[in-house]
Amino acid sequence: MALNPNYEEIGKTFITQYYALFDDPANRPGLVNLYNPELSFMTFEGQQIQGSAKILEKLQSLSFQNIKRVLTAVDSQPMFDGSILINVLGRLQCDDDPPHAYSQTFVLKPAGTSFFCAHDIFRLNIHNSA
Amino acid sequence: MALNPNYEEIGKTFITQYYALFDDPANRPGLVNLYNPELSFMTFEGQQIQGSAKILEKLQSLSFQNIKRVLTAVDSQPMFDGSILINVLGRLQCDDDPPHAYSQTFVLKPAGTSFFCAHDIFRLNIHNSA
Repeated sequence: MALNPNYEEIGKTFITQYYALFDDPANRPGLVNLYNPELSFMTFEGQQIQGSAKILEKLQSLSFQNIKRVLTAVDSQPMFDGSILINVLGRLQCDDDPPHAYSQTFVLKPAGTSFFCAHDIFRLNIHNSA
Repeated sequence: MALNPNYEEIGKTFITQYYALFDDPANRPGLVNLYNPELSFMTFEGQQIQGSAKILEKLQSLSFQNIKRVLTAVDSQPMFDGSILINVLGRLQCDDDPPHAYSQTFVLKPAGTSFFCAHDIFRLNIHNSA
């Protein structure tokens, strides 16, 4: 396995697909297919979760219906095992909450001809606005 | 190689050491020793850099002398090759600039009995304050 030369495009495509699912409550449960049953780690606002079943539970506990999301930066890097590291900065507004800056980090790991989401770290930046 | 059970402590210790060097202009060049001559990637405000020599050039081009830094979150995850993924959210103020939220992602890769910084993605969050 080596550096994937298409890391930039794969990163941006993944982010578009991921948030299209996430931001539509009807499709949000479909995110479970992006994670591995055993090998995927999520850290959601500091809470550590492993495996797609528990990740799905977490995603289904998010009750907001309307999300307005603006991405301000998507930075990707290739990794030497063929994985792709992605860091996203953006702003999101859920239902009637005020908008918040957030950061989300992913590692996509190759599996056959595709990828699964091996690492996912999400944090709102609420204590952080300058 | 397997999951490192001490990922949390290693992540926090690294962040403390990294910023102690970074935030002191006299010690900032010492950061070069944390990167690999060939294998390390840095993305600094969207600019992609590979290898410790070019990373050092970038670090030496940062001319601010006084940094006030507040960390708001340090989230770490273990990776299956023994690496450690770290995402930091914080706020920093350089010289007379206004304070800015920022995000920085690292991957520490094992090398002998220690680690090197294999991935580093840094972004100020200036378009992002809610």
